[in-house]
Amino acid sequence: MAYGLLNGKRGIISGALNEQSIAWKVALKAKEEGATFVLTNAPIAMRMGAINELAQHCNAEIIPADATSTEDLEKLFTQSQEILGGKVDFVLHSIGMSPNIRKGRAYTDLNYEWFKQSLDISAMSLHRMLQTAYKQDAISEWGSVVALTYMAAQRTFPFYTDMAEAKAMLESVARSFGYHYGKYRKVRVNTVSQSPTVTTAGAGIGGFDKFYDFADKMAPLGNASADQCADYCLTLFSDLTRMVTMQNLFHDGGFVNTGVSMEVMGGM
Amino acid sequence: MAYGLLNGKRGIISGALNEQSIAWKVALKAKEEGATFVLTNAPIAMRMGAINELAQHCNAEIIPADATSTEDLEKLFTQSQEILGGKVDFVLHSIGMSPNIRKGRAYTDLNYEWFKQSLDISAMSLHRMLQTAYKQDAISEWGSVVALTYMAAQRTFPFYTDMAEAKAMLESVARSFGYHYGKYRKVRVNTVSQSPTVTTAGAGIGGFDKFYDFADKMAPLGNASADQCADYCLTLFSDLTRMVTMQNLFHDGGFVNTGVSMEVMGGM
Amino acid sequence: MAYGLLNGKRGIISGALNEQSIAWKVALKAKEEGATFVLTNAPIAMRMGAINELAQHCNAEIIPADATSTEDLEKLFTQSQEILGGKVDFVLHSIGMSPNIRKGRAYTDLNYEWFKQSLDISAMSLHRMLQTAYKQDAISEWGSVVALTYMAAQRTFPFYTDMAEAKAMLESVARSFGYHYGKYRKVRVNTVSQSPTVTTAGAGIGGFDKFYDFADKMAPLGNASADQCADYCLTLFSDLTRMVTMQNLFHDGGFVNTGVSMEVMGGM
Amino acid sequence: MAYGLLNGKRGIISGALNEQSIAWKVALKAKEEGATFVLTNAPIAMRMGAINELAQHCNAEIIPADATSTEDLEKLFTQSQEILGGKVDFVLHSIGMSPNIRKGRAYTDLNYEWFKQSLDISAMSLHRMLQTAYKQDAISEWGSVVALTYMAAQRTFPFYTDMAEAKAMLESVARSFGYHYGKYRKVRVNTVSQSPTVTTAGAGIGGFDKFYDFADKMAPLGNASADQCADYCLTLFSDLTRMVTMQNLFHDGGFVNTGVSMEVMGGM
Repeated sequence: MAYGLLNGKRGIISGALNEQSIAWKVALKAKEEGATFVLTNAPIAMRMGAINELAQHCNAEIIPADATSTEDLEKLFTQSQEILGGKVDFVLHSIGMSPNIRKGRAYTDLNYEWFKQSLDISAMSLHRMLQTAYKQDAISEWGSVVALTYMAAQRTFPFYTDMAEAKAMLESVARSFGYHYGKYRKVRVNTVSQSPTVTTAGAGIGGFDKFYDFADKMAPLGNASADQCADYCLTLFSDLTRMVTMQNLFHDGGFVNTGVSMEVMGGM
Repeated sequence: MAYGLLNGKRGIISGALNEQSIAWKVALKAKEEGATFVLTNAPIAMRMGAINELAQHCNAEIIPADATSTEDLEKLFTQSQEILGGKVDFVLHSIGMSPNIRKGRAYTDLNYEWFKQSLDISAMSLHRMLQTAYKQDAISEWGSVVALTYMAAQRTFPFYTDMAEAKAMLESVARSFGYHYGKYRKVRVNTVSQSPTVTTAGAGIGGFDKFYDFADKMAPLGNASADQCADYCLTLFSDLTRMVTMQNLFHDGGFVNTGVSMEVMGGM
Repeated sequence: MAYGLLNGKRGIISGALNEQSIAWKVALKAKEEGATFVLTNAPIAMRMGAINELAQHCNAEIIPADATSTEDLEKLFTQSQEILGGKVDFVLHSIGMSPNIRKGRAYTDLNYEWFKQSLDISAMSLHRMLQTAYKQDAISEWGSVVALTYMAAQRTFPFYTDMAEAKAMLESVARSFGYHYGKYRKVRVNTVSQSPTVTTAGAGIGGFDKFYDFADKMAPLGNASADQCADYCLTLFSDLTRMVTMQNLFHDGGFVNTGVSMEVMGGM
Repeated sequence: MAYGLLNGKRGIISGALNEQSIAWKVALKAKEEGATFVLTNAPIAMRMGAINELAQHCNAEIIPADATSTEDLEKLFTQSQEILGGKVDFVLHSIGMSPNIRKGRAYTDLNYEWFKQSLDISAMSLHRMLQTAYKQDAISEWGSVVALTYMAAQRTFPFYTDMAEAKAMLESVARSFGYHYGKYRKVRVNTVSQSPTVTTAGAGIGGFDKFYDFADKMAPLGNASADQCADYCLTLFSDLTRMVTMQNLFHDGGFVNTGVSMEVMGGM
């Protein structure tokens, strides 16, 4: 069911790798809600992904961009405005990767070069996007930027290793830049802290399945799905949430504020 | 502009006193978005208010109810379901009053009987509403309950006196009952922590004007208006936010996460 | 091992019921650290408790006081100052009781008169103590007030029912009064949020044993003991923490910031 | 006045640049409280600093170490254990620097190479210290690690620019490593979030004076001094706080939980 929530809005959506991606769902739903947008992903991620199929379905162009390259991001914003015919109204940042997780390094045995890459790709990239957009004045007044994050920024989930720091930094960038972009163009910047989700990114984390079940038993409403997360992102891109900014918003079926559920206690 | 976000939804809206009330704006917008609903207020508040005018405009019935009376709330939910023709999909709790504030008692000189009234009216009332609804199974699956709160639950605003405790308790009820109602019927319960707003309730607080200006200078987007707050409430009543529960959601133009703004520092 | 941390300090310690009580441990350790103090408890609790034994051991007088009675608290502060020979330097608030828990009422079926009693005894009592002290100017400059709380103020633990609201309110009182008493006499007010502890109060909560084990497996350091909690309280009464105020301080072996432990996941 | 709180304890104290440094005060007081320790600082900082004077006064050796060099940190822990005659009981991390702040870059115009340096020096350095210590098993059971941070990790202070992200990351490292080191050796890791302090680091931040005054007017107890911060650190190194871990502890005179003070409102 569509409401026309994003009628006439222009956006940039990053991170749609395949059908499981939250960004993929956001793209589908943004289309239904009346938005036009550009898709972007890292050149290397695009080779693995099915993004062309999505682009066709959404009638969207793809602009490859390495989110650690300011130059690429400059092109992304310049070209997006050309393609879309005006300033951008919404941006989805769904970018994260930890070489330490990929290669199975424990948190007490991190490789620091990889740690730096985790930060650059997963957190500094949001600052780069925002600084690039800010300098180009590429986002419309009352525009909305959402970045996907995880609760490991607040609490320790041992298997999440250095992505905890990356997400903490990401959320800080949202707050800090939210202040500056708010003053400048009333642009809001928020993060959405989503339940563990069965995506390619999630599946790469050791012990993910067990944790998925734990979280599902803990949250009164169970884990939120990628589809539901996309619905929530739409509300944040819409004109109905203009005064929500610098927030980290939990979309997690109640997990974060549940100290323990009867189900989890029963399983002990 | 309307989207049909609440098409077919039935609701109960409390606290619409006059045109400045957030609840008043919620009613107007809920109507536009396709909802049918019942209005309710304390009998005493209704005498002072212009609620009949709103009811006519919205084609809504009014059910007077004292939110500190379980009996009244039982009637409210029973009659609402009869009038609306089914279970309730959304509830707005916008109820708060402190005799200590009204009578100008300092926080260090509270009258404890009045303090108890503040708690009963402003916070326990949410528990009463939820417990009543729970026992009657009066809220639909995936229903949504929103209560309006203020940041004094997290930080001290000296002029807010015992309403700080009432709001802290209110937010706790939302978390606690959100767990139970989530398990029972997937009903979500959240609070919205709104900017200082020029309403009858706000105006009753000493020093409110000065504080309104301070908050407006602090928040990068300025203070959120009652209208904008109503927009935000709509998103929380809609089906797009089903997995958001047990949260306290700031709707404040960025105030809560701004340590200091250049404008406030300049004013020192 | 004693350090003389509280040499020359005068205090009031409430809530020492028996050897398991945190307040009991605080009394023993405060004595060792050089403090003199008065013990207090509700008349009814004293009949059940072994407080006389503690009083003898600590060379302390006992002043019965119902913490819901302003009159009793006035006597408590007046007499304490007489007995101790001057203003009070520290106060421990360790008072809490929920008739709803005692009588096994579910959170969705609370008795509201009992709920009000929970709040009056467990939370308003801190305000009463502070307001009474404030009016008598009974606490020395740089004095310290600590109230014991539990994390249910932040997250839902289903078995904790209406004590969640009482603790949320208690912590709010600490913040609010901390502001006013800080301005007035540099007195600090904090709450300590302690691990589940095997005390008479804890044991009265259904499912406590299972939860105790869960928390112990979750916290990297395990659950904090009553003894360790007393040690921590001493630091907060000492002159080394003068600028810590309006805080809720977790003393929990790391529970609150652990999203999940490997032990808990293993048990799923 | 000394209590012998750290009698027999061995430590490493970083970041003592000159008499204004919090680390300098920690060293003086740790000495008084009975500790022996090693001082460390970056080679470049040592040339500017008066650390030799402090070392003599405290009868402490100095081990220069670049906190971004794992090799240097390995030497630091190896040599410290040799010099002190055993494992280390406490560590103070007081290390932070932002080239972007030094060179006056706005947050919306950051140099990303400098941003990476800010993170490496100010946040990753804590991970490096902990990972190095962990691998050497260099910290005693129940040891204590404290890192100094600032509230910009939670809220935006525009002048603090990229140090906000560095501090957010630092606090995340404390949580994450606190979990692992807690499990391994019962070592606790915390951050202390201190009031704005007139130190060399603080003074380098534009608009610091105005902000210092603002914070002093906001906090009911005023800004906490470096001396008071050192006192607080002592309690965290002592055996009285063994179950406090993975926490960010505000030492700020009540600033963080004050929404507004009458003084600040009066100044508007």
